[in-house]
Amino acid sequence: MKYEALNFEEKFGLLDEQWSPKVIAEMNDYQFKIAKIEGDFIWHSHQDTDETFIVLEGSLRIDFRDGSVTLEQGEMYVVPEGAEHKPYAENEVKLLLIEPKGVQNTGDRDENERTAENDVWI
Amino acid sequence: MKYEALNFEEKFGLLDEQWSPKVIAEMNDYQFKIAKIEGDFIWHSHQDTDETFIVLEGSLRIDFRDGSVTLEQGEMYVVPEGAEHKPYAENEVKLLLIEPKGVQNTGDRDENERTAENDVWI
Repeated sequence: MKYEALNFEEKFGLLDEQWSPKVIAEMNDYQFKIAKIEGDFIWHSHQDTDETFIVLEGSLRIDFRDGSVTLEQGEMYVVPEGAEHKPYAENEVKLLLIEPKGVQNTGDRDENERTAENDVWI
Repeated sequence: MKYEALNFEEKFGLLDEQWSPKVIAEMNDYQFKIAKIEGDFIWHSHQDTDETFIVLEGSLRIDFRDGSVTLEQGEMYVVPEGAEHKPYAENEVKLLLIEPKGVQNTGDRDENERTAENDVWI
């Protein structure tokens, strides 16, 4: 049988659009997604799940209501369930996101210009 | 409040021992573990869960009964539930492993020289 590694750079080569997470793999009922973001996201939270951010290239700041964390390449952070947060990137950052299948990127917020279609593979 | 990024290299600096996965983060009931491995693991499978391998440095081969996949830095693979597999690294490789909390590294195999203590944080 043919087994193939998933190469992050190769997958990012297929993704032009910012703010549009794409699924690259599933583990049980969790999904691995890549995303390019630049600028400000919106404040939101996920009431039922933690959410993992891994920075593959660039720098990402995650703002919380009472502080912030900055992730550089080779760093990760798990945003706890229920925590209001707002990702921000001064320059484009390449991210690996890990969360349960079906989680909406804008969390508890009404649909808006940052709402992305879910479960789209690349 | 103080929020701190998790830095993979920093965590690996605290881990001397090979074949001894250490937990660095939790997302819901899943754990992120770092591990250094070199040489041959044993054939095993996990009957109840997929298992994710991400190569942070070096090269990892995962043998299956009917083929193999080689992962370089910046590549990942999700070993499906139930699939017999055997990780192998010619030279030391630094890995990020993601799987549900409580999964034994040697899977369905009796305890042996590769069995590592579970749920140890670094």
